[in-house]
Amino acid sequence: MSVITIERKVLEKNDEIAKANRELFRNRGIYVLNFVSSPGAGKTSLLERTLEHLRGRLPIAVIEGDVQTDFDAQRVAKYNVPVVQIVTNGGCHLDAKLVADALQNLDLTDIKIVVIENVGNLVCPANYDLGEEIKVVVASTTEGDDKPLKYPTMFRNASVLIINKIDLLPHLPSNVEVLKNNALSINPSLQVFETSCTTDAGIAGWCDWLEKTCVKKP
Amino acid sequence: MSVITIERKVLEKNDEIAKANRELFRNRGIYVLNFVSSPGAGKTSLLERTLEHLRGRLPIAVIEGDVQTDFDAQRVAKYNVPVVQIVTNGGCHLDAKLVADALQNLDLTDIKIVVIENVGNLVCPANYDLGEEIKVVVASTTEGDDKPLKYPTMFRNASVLIINKIDLLPHLPSNVEVLKNNALSINPSLQVFETSCTTDAGIAGWCDWLEKTCVKKP
Repeated sequence: MSVITIERKVLEKNDEIAKANRELFRNRGIYVLNFVSSPGAGKTSLLERTLEHLRGRLPIAVIEGDVQTDFDAQRVAKYNVPVVQIVTNGGCHLDAKLVADALQNLDLTDIKIVVIENVGNLVCPANYDLGEEIKVVVASTTEGDDKPLKYPTMFRNASVLIINKIDLLPHLPSNVEVLKNNALSINPSLQVFETSCTTDAGIAGWCDWLEKTCVKKP
Repeated sequence: MSVITIERKVLEKNDEIAKANRELFRNRGIYVLNFVSSPGAGKTSLLERTLEHLRGRLPIAVIEGDVQTDFDAQRVAKYNVPVVQIVTNGGCHLDAKLVADALQNLDLTDIKIVVIENVGNLVCPANYDLGEEIKVVVASTTEGDDKPLKYPTMFRNASVLIINKIDLLPHLPSNVEVLKNNALSINPSLQVFETSCTTDAGIAGWCDWLEKTCVKKP
């Protein structure tokens, strides 16, 4: 049995569980986002700003994924929302089974949105469906304009691109228009937002879109 | 046959080829560095500054690894050094076989250093020996101070840590001492450098160390 056969079987098994997760979420009317990015692009900070902004408007629960530590769950818990930390112990991505297990420990009563924060990795999480409604890829301005072309699968599989750390643009050789156009050349239907979690720029626009989208959903 | 058995077999096979690569390099007196980091931490920029600084002092050849595109090989080729691009086509790390194949197309005559620039990924490349002498992990100040604790295997397996983009520190909530101490708590024997590829800060120190180390080697 080859490695490729094994890999296909792993992905097939994953897709089955993802389907069950998706059914569970849809039956409860919960909109689920899978946050993906390079390490340190600002997924947790973006989540914190989102929780702050939507507090009292939309009940949100969080599943945190990390290779090690529960730092992110600790950060999120301060916002008084249900949160579970998955530690992958070296694993490079979350899979649907890990999410299904986490759901056993997450109180979804009255919850309207679940944010799954994936392991910081622009490659492997692209191939694993967790049962989410959409993937949200966060790209930091500091990473350079060429990342969508160098890691195309992630940008192809995402529905939303959040260009984060725009407050740093004056100090960088980066060009946000080039980054955006590179991403749109890979995936023309990407919904793009530009944010700074330091200055709060763009956070309201992103949160308003999220609120409208998750209310509008079938 | 389980996935874990397959994974172990893949790593065993990899280690065999890595051993052969290492013998080839040592027989030729070539010092080999495996550059690893998150996407956009500045591996290619650091390599460019290193090529510039050591020009005329140490002949360097380069193996570039990317999921897609040959952008990095094009950037490096401008420095008039032998370079081969490996495109992994979705693969999340380089392995020893890919490096062995690349060596078939790389002229090593008179070469003293080979730099292998791995795929931007702080997880998977940590487990794959390519036959290098040392792993050099590049961490950008923009990624936050907690990355060594969240991705410990990479920092444990590296010999050198280069903290890059220090020119951005005045604009960041990051604390470089915390980052350094977190890394040293994982791996106390890390040799640490602080650099900026924009201002050239720290590049001379890093290159001088590299020159001394590769001359000193057994």
